Amino acid sequence: MPAFEDLIDGYRRFRLGSYREQRERYDQLAQGQSPKIMVIACSDSRVDPTRVFDASPGQLFVLRNIANLVPPYSAISGQSSVAAALEYAVTGIHVHHIVIFGHARCGGVSAALAGDFDNPVAGKHVHAWMEFIAPARDAVKAACQLSPDIDAQRALELANIRLGLENLRSYPFVADAVAKGTVKLHGVLFDIAEGVLKILDAKTGQFEPVKVDL
Amino acid sequence: MPAFEDLIDGYRRFRLGSYREQRERYDQLAQGQSPKIMVIACSDSRVDPTRVFDASPGQLFVLRNIANLVPPYSAISGQSSVAAALEYAVTGIHVHHIVIFGHARCGGVSAALAGDFDNPVAGKHVHAWMEFIAPARDAVKAACQLSPDIDAQRALELANIRLGLENLRSYPFVADAVAKGTVKLHGVLFDIAEGVLKILDAKTGQFEPVKVDL
Amino acid sequence: MPAFEDLIDGYRRFRLGSYREQRERYDQLAQGQSPKIMVIACSDSRVDPTRVFDASPGQLFVLRNIANLVPPYSAISGQSSVAAALEYAVTGIHVHHIVIFGHARCGGVSAALAGDFDNPVAGKHVHAWMEFIAPARDAVKAACQLSPDIDAQRALELANIRLGLENLRSYPFVADAVAKGTVKLHGVLFDIAEGVLKILDAKTGQFEPVKVDL
Amino acid sequence: MPAFEDLIDGYRRFRLGSYREQRERYDQLAQGQSPKIMVIACSDSRVDPTRVFDASPGQLFVLRNIANLVPPYSAISGQSSVAAALEYAVTGIHVHHIVIFGHARCGGVSAALAGDFDNPVAGKHVHAWMEFIAPARDAVKAACQLSPDIDAQRALELANIRLGLENLRSYPFVADAVAKGTVKLHGVLFDIAEGVLKILDAKTGQFEPVKVDL
Repeated sequence: MPAFEDLIDGYRRFRLGSYREQRERYDQLAQGQSPKIMVIACSDSRVDPTRVFDASPGQLFVLRNIANLVPPYSAISGQSSVAAALEYAVTGIHVHHIVIFGHARCGGVSAALAGDFDNPVAGKHVHAWMEFIAPARDAVKAACQLSPDIDAQRALELANIRLGLENLRSYPFVADAVAKGTVKLHGVLFDIAEGVLKILDAKTGQFEPVKVDL
Repeated sequence: MPAFEDLIDGYRRFRLGSYREQRERYDQLAQGQSPKIMVIACSDSRVDPTRVFDASPGQLFVLRNIANLVPPYSAISGQSSVAAALEYAVTGIHVHHIVIFGHARCGGVSAALAGDFDNPVAGKHVHAWMEFIAPARDAVKAACQLSPDIDAQRALELANIRLGLENLRSYPFVADAVAKGTVKLHGVLFDIAEGVLKILDAKTGQFEPVKVDL
Repeated sequence: MPAFEDLIDGYRRFRLGSYREQRERYDQLAQGQSPKIMVIACSDSRVDPTRVFDASPGQLFVLRNIANLVPPYSAISGQSSVAAALEYAVTGIHVHHIVIFGHARCGGVSAALAGDFDNPVAGKHVHAWMEFIAPARDAVKAACQLSPDIDAQRALELANIRLGLENLRSYPFVADAVAKGTVKLHGVLFDIAEGVLKILDAKTGQFEPVKVDL
Repeated sequence: MPAFEDLIDGYRRFRLGSYREQRERYDQLAQGQSPKIMVIACSDSRVDPTRVFDASPGQLFVLRNIANLVPPYSAISGQSSVAAALEYAVTGIHVHHIVIFGHARCGGVSAALAGDFDNPVAGKHVHAWMEFIAPARDAVKAACQLSPDIDAQRALELANIRLGLENLRSYPFVADAVAKGTVKLHGVLFDIAEGVLKILDAKTGQFEPVKVDL
């Protein structure tokens, strides 16, 4: 099991490296967490939010699922990982920001477009999960009928973030906190091939790239 | 919004630092992911698996929810983040290992024991979510009746991992892959205060600490 | 014998350092001791009470034995180190507090659980000594039958402190002093790995961590 | 309870001071102790071995009782703190040195001479305990008959150390280790008023002061 051994070796590097170097920080964190930011990210192995945001221990409360989805409040069942994490973040640890962190080349989005997981045997759980973005997917597909050169994958990745932000506001405790100004919502997309991070700009209503002095 | 600005500053450090340094690796990853390990971790800001395992980009497919839970297959509703992620990991990207990564001082476990979230208004979603570990919680509580100094929190954190491993096997495609030997299941717990990682040892049936030469 | 030479070198540092700096204090102490606190601690090299409580010369009257045990009064033989030290502390130098100072990772407690010292040749004296905590050990072992992930070591370390406090009250002169309010009993546990000190709280009946502003 | 509050304040100083400064050392020690020296010292508040030997965490395995006594092996009862600690030190953690650390102005020795604790009600446990040095006490008392200017207190403090060394050799596992050369026995006396440490010299057969460049 070399892959698992690699994981344990990684722990040893951490223990002897950054854990040791930041021992006091970890001693403080052992007494409790108080992150100011919740990030909702994809499970994809290439877009770890800790890495992309060069985050410190204790900085980010992170929910990760396939395609960084937020189901609408009306659709969640009794036991929802997203509802529980949002509730804990907003009413328990009182984060100030909720960030939906999408990414380019998302396998979930790609599958939703291609119908890869429509196979009722092999992929029924991914299929069911991706149905939460059906409104966005259908809009993008309709647009493609009109304009064949649309990059449907990219369009749906962005539309998925917009839909997630809309769905966030359907949770009563999120809507309350946003109304009170104690929580802000943000949508961002990272493109691994280009190294670009785009933020949905409230003024322009568009995803705008973050400037970096290269 | 200084916290959000910090996040963007972190992205700039990443873009100018490790992204640039590992540009070839990211170019390869842009073509697709093939992680060998799926990690199921808690959303807690202090126990990021990327950091604790000093993981590389592309190494870990990560699901994060409150208390690193795996509901039993019989209990999942039609649209389950856990079922979708497991299905994608096992049948889509063919990971070799699934690791349940628990941690000490878990707020979800603590709440499950204390009943903090039994408030039907403020905490109903966390409460509902944590009900997935009811069998483990009840066994630990019964043990506490016999010996008042039991560390119920730690006992339940470990029992939750065992229960998660048992529940993993209830998913037909996981059970098949385990039976074929293509997937191995692992349970580990990290204690932030001590810096110790413990692995559930198949031989001893106990959680044993990973040796590190300090 | 480098280890012994180190010890003598340590004395020279003391003689030229803190002894010289606190010469007046030592001159006063040469006339007699009047500590207000008796500490019953383990012989373990890692949990010196003088160090952990940053104590001054003359502050603590200290009994140290394996696992900071207090046998019940009914079980002591004619010549007991614990009975003698308690009697001297309470009726001779009139301490105001008796503190049972347990610690995590205690080898004596570990051995009592594992039966390591059941070997009748090599370990009979440790074995016999640790039998004083048999009631606490048996309760913890029964609890472990219900929940395999109980940290039996930690549970027994704490139960041992509770048992010691109960046993302290079995000494007539201690019971008298406690009844008169001239002596208070305390139970504390130190965890070397976490740096945390826990005190048995009379109100909650639980061991509660001492707050430290890290 | 100001004295107890002082104790807790002392812990806070330790936690924020030397514990923090030596965090790595404590992390290592959390994995186990391997002291090379066992010290048998008095409970007296003025002669803490950690302080007098400026010892490091993990350096000394310490037994403390009234008058740093070692009963003869033939006299110990079934459950002896001294036998247990010696056995653990010699056969469990394999110390290289056992040091009997006596001190001037010892209340136990003083009482043994004065018969202060012969009162069968108030002091019977100290009395019983100090009977272990009866042979030394009787020899010193006989000498005083012959020479009225003998400092009986000092003479008995030293004789007690010699008797303790003799009694150490009566424990079979100590005798074996001494015969094999794996353990060395030492007797030292500290005088708090003078700041002098004397070591029983194997060559001269006398207690010789350690030289310090004042």
